[in-house]
Amino acid sequence: MQGDTVAWDFVSELTTRIGPRPAGSAAELAAAEWAARRLKALGFENVHIESFPMTAWVRGAEQAQITAPAVQPLTAASLGGAPPTAPGGVEGEVALFANLDDLKAAAPGSLNGKIAMIAFHMPRTQDGAGYGYAGAGRRSGPVEAAKRGAIGFVIRSVGTGGHRLAHTGATAYADGRVPIPAFAISEPDGDQIERLVALGEKVRVRLTSSATYVPDSRSHNIIGEIRGSTRPNEVIVLGAHMDSWDLGTGAIDDGAGAAIVTAAARLAREAPRKPQRTLRVVLYGSEEISQPTETLLGGRFYAQSRKADLGMHVLAGESDFGADRVYSVALPKGVAESAFGQSLMRVLIPIGVVPSSKPPGDGGADVEPLERAGVPVFLLSQDGSKYFDYHHTADDTLDKIDPKTLSQNVAAWAALVWLAADSAVDFRAPAGGTMPATH
Amino acid sequence: MQGDTVAWDFVSELTTRIGPRPAGSAAELAAAEWAARRLKALGFENVHIESFPMTAWVRGAEQAQITAPAVQPLTAASLGGAPPTAPGGVEGEVALFANLDDLKAAAPGSLNGKIAMIAFHMPRTQDGAGYGYAGAGRRSGPVEAAKRGAIGFVIRSVGTGGHRLAHTGATAYADGRVPIPAFAISEPDGDQIERLVALGEKVRVRLTSSATYVPDSRSHNIIGEIRGSTRPNEVIVLGAHMDSWDLGTGAIDDGAGAAIVTAAARLAREAPRKPQRTLRVVLYGSEEISQPTETLLGGRFYAQSRKADLGMHVLAGESDFGADRVYSVALPKGVAESAFGQSLMRVLIPIGVVPSSKPPGDGGADVEPLERAGVPVFLLSQDGSKYFDYHHTADDTLDKIDPKTLSQNVAAWAALVWLAADSAVDFRAPAGGTMPATH
Repeated sequence: MQGDTVAWDFVSELTTRIGPRPAGSAAELAAAEWAARRLKALGFENVHIESFPMTAWVRGAEQAQITAPAVQPLTAASLGGAPPTAPGGVEGEVALFANLDDLKAAAPGSLNGKIAMIAFHMPRTQDGAGYGYAGAGRRSGPVEAAKRGAIGFVIRSVGTGGHRLAHTGATAYADGRVPIPAFAISEPDGDQIERLVALGEKVRVRLTSSATYVPDSRSHNIIGEIRGSTRPNEVIVLGAHMDSWDLGTGAIDDGAGAAIVTAAARLAREAPRKPQRTLRVVLYGSEEISQPTETLLGGRFYAQSRKADLGMHVLAGESDFGADRVYSVALPKGVAESAFGQSLMRVLIPIGVVPSSKPPGDGGADVEPLERAGVPVFLLSQDGSKYFDYHHTADDTLDKIDPKTLSQNVAAWAALVWLAADSAVDFRAPAGGTMPATH
Repeated sequence: MQGDTVAWDFVSELTTRIGPRPAGSAAELAAAEWAARRLKALGFENVHIESFPMTAWVRGAEQAQITAPAVQPLTAASLGGAPPTAPGGVEGEVALFANLDDLKAAAPGSLNGKIAMIAFHMPRTQDGAGYGYAGAGRRSGPVEAAKRGAIGFVIRSVGTGGHRLAHTGATAYADGRVPIPAFAISEPDGDQIERLVALGEKVRVRLTSSATYVPDSRSHNIIGEIRGSTRPNEVIVLGAHMDSWDLGTGAIDDGAGAAIVTAAARLAREAPRKPQRTLRVVLYGSEEISQPTETLLGGRFYAQSRKADLGMHVLAGESDFGADRVYSVALPKGVAESAFGQSLMRVLIPIGVVPSSKPPGDGGADVEPLERAGVPVFLLSQDGSKYFDYHHTADDTLDKIDPKTLSQNVAAWAALVWLAADSAVDFRAPAGGTMPATH
């Protein structure tokens, strides 16, 4: 199995030449144009960019500090989508909660004039389960805190790295807006505030942000295909996203995924026999940012604009969990037991990928709209033990990617998509029946 | 051996209640007053603060970015002592050098209008040897770059962590000033610029700093003693420093050292028999910052103000290399072979401390002035393999200290200083002879 150079060069050049590429920004457009050129150069067909309107959120100048009992700087970052503060910032006493549930248990009005803080310590997990619970605090915290009177919200970063780096991320809107300024502080900063409170101190913090919204922005999905030889209208979607948070250079999230699916599809093209079905690489825009409307992310735009055609989407998957090794594969119900599933495992097991004990479940944010529309999905689960050390921080940079595990991802993806594309399996049929010839 | 609580509580409260304490700042004074109170509460005698004048350097607002070929933010921090830029910053093409020697080989005028960058990758070493060579680039780089016409200086951080955190540190003055603005950028940012250059791009950067100098500042040494029972005029100095860089909270550099020497001296006081000689804890101010005059750091002030008394300083040591475990001990020449040395090793070897194959050499920045004045020094070498992951960054926080290895440090220090203080060994005598009784 090869593909090292294609994937590594993709993620290395993308993150080096362009760097951060927030949804709706000029850098995201530059990345889209770069990717389209790269797909063409790699021999993809029907390469094009599909743009869609969105409201961009742009980080401004930010500052955070403890103001009492003694002045100390905090390492902080506004959550994505959160409003700016007044120019002098927002200041208040910290009301500390161990987790979102404790915040939700606070009485109405009990946080009047205060800055609510969730101090949850996210556990390290291989499958990312920690992100589910901890991430809910980031998403729902500002709305729940505002309901109870809080004037600002702070969360101990949803992460596991333990460095002075804040983990940003989108937070939820209610009634069309994020109600109060909302920040992530680094894990050591969260610990510092917890210790001060434990020492009996009343802790005050001041938060400043000049974030802005840019309503008339555009984001972009980049599409390229390896056309199938005999069933070209039957499409397998290989997804990843091209936008990134602004703090890092979007290497593990999700330059790596874009590189993996591109290199895997390219490998299928280089194989001695071109597969029967079409492999469609979709590099989504605007995966990271929630919007007031929550309708026009790249994944949703793709699914909505292809409603009539979704019946010909025979399978879809997404790579959006870094570049660490794939350890299991989850296939649509019944497929693992089919002849296709058995052939696949003969290729995957030698490279360390075992059958998952669970169904694919949530295939990822970009593939979810397809899944909800009935498109069968697969999931190649990556080891996420270290993913949240870097996720959504300035530390999401190329050096965090191991070329060896990146290459193993390409191999697993290439095996799966080539076998699926060179088959007539109907992944919608419980027993993995075949589809009639369409071409 | 106990002492865990004293050392941990010291460094935990110091770094939590006060946080960063740059030399000459109000926070450094608050830390000095806090430490004096703590030493008194722990039963130290003759506790007092000795203040001395200095010029403080205060970090301002900072910003750094790549401006070409595409705009990208850089994680950067001004080096300590470096001048501010003009308000709009300084911008120029990067002239990249692999190390300080290559920069020194550049022709006069060859860097006119450019920003010189040293991209040296500091190796990870246990004994800190990497810091010697790499640190020279930080100290001498700005002066050497300015000599050749550079308008600014950048160094890939002198560190081994690989995170998006800049490692600051003092840089050298020439003719009373640092000649040009000088910054450290994080290691991943250094790699990014190296990759852009390797891709054939001309890279331009813009650096902005509003740093200021405060000439009429004061720094402070804090002193406390466990008076000797029979030879109280014979003094053993246990040194560490209380000032810290402004980015972190000075946990490993050097709250840990202050905690270790304080707890070790306290243990000697709690021993069944009070030792014969005096243990003097000296918590120095202004260790980190070089000044134009380079005369009034805490260690120099201490030695200069005790010129007449240095003959009664029988031994001195310093803890200033984090909180990882002690692995070897270096004693003054001839002492290891003496009865004292043999007794000492019977205590140290079981806790994992072996005799050093080298003489103490550089005992540390604060103890060096004593050493140069002829005071015998010892060195308890700590494992510095991870020290430069955090050194001089925002990441120098309490969570980087392992209470178990902190405790092993206290044990090693307590054993050494108690045995030395309860002896009459003349550490100036090559064969470890004894001193006449002085009291």
